[in-house]
Amino acid sequence: MARDTDTDEAAAPTGDGGLRRFRLDLRYDGTDFSGWARQPGRRTVQETLESALQTVLRLADPASLTVAGRTDAGVHAIGQVAHVDLPSEVVGGDLARRLQGVLPPDVSVRAVAEAADGFDARFAALRRRYRYRVADGSLNPLRRHDTVRWRRPLDVGLMHTAATGLLGEHDFAAYCRPREGASTIRTLLQLDVARDAEAVVVIEAAADAFCHNQVRAMVGALLAVGDGRRPVGWPAEVLSAGVRNSAVTVAPPHGLTLVAVEYPPDDELALQAQRTRRRRDA
Amino acid sequence: MARDTDTDEAAAPTGDGGLRRFRLDLRYDGTDFSGWARQPGRRTVQETLESALQTVLRLADPASLTVAGRTDAGVHAIGQVAHVDLPSEVVGGDLARRLQGVLPPDVSVRAVAEAADGFDARFAALRRRYRYRVADGSLNPLRRHDTVRWRRPLDVGLMHTAATGLLGEHDFAAYCRPREGASTIRTLLQLDVARDAEAVVVIEAAADAFCHNQVRAMVGALLAVGDGRRPVGWPAEVLSAGVRNSAVTVAPPHGLTLVAVEYPPDDELALQAQRTRRRRDA
Repeated sequence: MARDTDTDEAAAPTGDGGLRRFRLDLRYDGTDFSGWARQPGRRTVQETLESALQTVLRLADPASLTVAGRTDAGVHAIGQVAHVDLPSEVVGGDLARRLQGVLPPDVSVRAVAEAADGFDARFAALRRRYRYRVADGSLNPLRRHDTVRWRRPLDVGLMHTAATGLLGEHDFAAYCRPREGASTIRTLLQLDVARDAEAVVVIEAAADAFCHNQVRAMVGALLAVGDGRRPVGWPAEVLSAGVRNSAVTVAPPHGLTLVAVEYPPDDELALQAQRTRRRRDA
Repeated sequence: MARDTDTDEAAAPTGDGGLRRFRLDLRYDGTDFSGWARQPGRRTVQETLESALQTVLRLADPASLTVAGRTDAGVHAIGQVAHVDLPSEVVGGDLARRLQGVLPPDVSVRAVAEAADGFDARFAALRRRYRYRVADGSLNPLRRHDTVRWRRPLDVGLMHTAATGLLGEHDFAAYCRPREGASTIRTLLQLDVARDAEAVVVIEAAADAFCHNQVRAMVGALLAVGDGRRPVGWPAEVLSAGVRNSAVTVAPPHGLTLVAVEYPPDDELALQAQRTRRRRDA
């Protein structure tokens, strides 16, 4: 029943052996998870959800989820999206509510719905949005699980200016943990730095996709500018050098939250998935 | 050195044996505290802060804090205010930062400043503001520590209408856990019920002061209206009966947060403290 959508050319399984594709909208507190992706002997979001689906739907094997953003250990999500292909006959009732009944309190299913033709949580996504929270003043203890405390004062104006130097399509190899055979060319659409109403420094990042560690490495470079250790042009210099720079400290995971994944209108889903696959193969 | 400001008629200790009064602005995650007030053998916010002050200032005895809102076990605060009288000679440097260095991550000192003449955290307060959060849909796991999950759908319009029936000056004995010799007459200035941007039901309450359990008991009555167990006029009926009603279920503590304490301008502080004491004695 499980399908490896990463290598599968068919965009959706409709009419394929009675499987139906479902879209899941998810939120989780990443604190006590070793990230999204299954790892033997670790508590992961993927394993927790796949087991819950297996329990609720009484499947012989765990379901197999494909996710839009493979978050690292400690990273949170309030707008994660995944899909799963299930035999038509097993699905019924309010699946979101049934799942919530067996899930632990740190994972929540906002919605489950049959996916439109051509939908693929990973490949049909147009863009991902992440948020990073840093408090350089006193930290609200109720937000300490998703906010990093920074001991030096941050100059938000400098950080924002530095961030604009990273916008656009670039090879982000300098900010990526390399994965064999994977391109590190990405289009950074937004990288805004501002204080919110409670004076917390909030960094909003959006791209077609991010490579591994990219948001946290970029935030690490911006923090070095913000607290005066590096000049404002440094993050862009690092970028154009094109190689991983050990002077960039990857920012701690618990400040990072995947806030949204955006998809095109239904009639463009299949085309977008095709486009993404072609680009990744190139 | 400790002063019992609850019984002390002098509003501020300036010039009194070299004591200076300091105002502390505090936030805490109430999850792992047995409330504000010291209790033998329990972890309380008061004991944690008083010990921190003793450590940082090398006092012979723990400092003695007077607080604006004595929160119960599990209740949070993002706008708590307290005062403490300290010998002038011991205070110096950035006390807020020094305290933060020894405090656990679930308590935070936003600011410490010398108090204006006549300031008394408890008696000079004009009003207290509390917020209660309930999710009747899927709950954001990152907010599960300060949001109650409600299994039945809530009609926010009905809850808001019911709430208006409690506004104004009343004897709130029906909603108070009695304390010997203490008046239960209060002026409820605000009790608004609305959904926020994430569809969480948020109840905002403001009064000159609240008696023990009052906010959570009122919220309990509103929830009974919201999920259809009681008619819209019921909370006001309970109020006018004037006696504790066992049909009112006190809502769980972790949904409640003290968000602000408001004081008059400096030149009216002493007068306000005097007024409050007179009213409480009546």
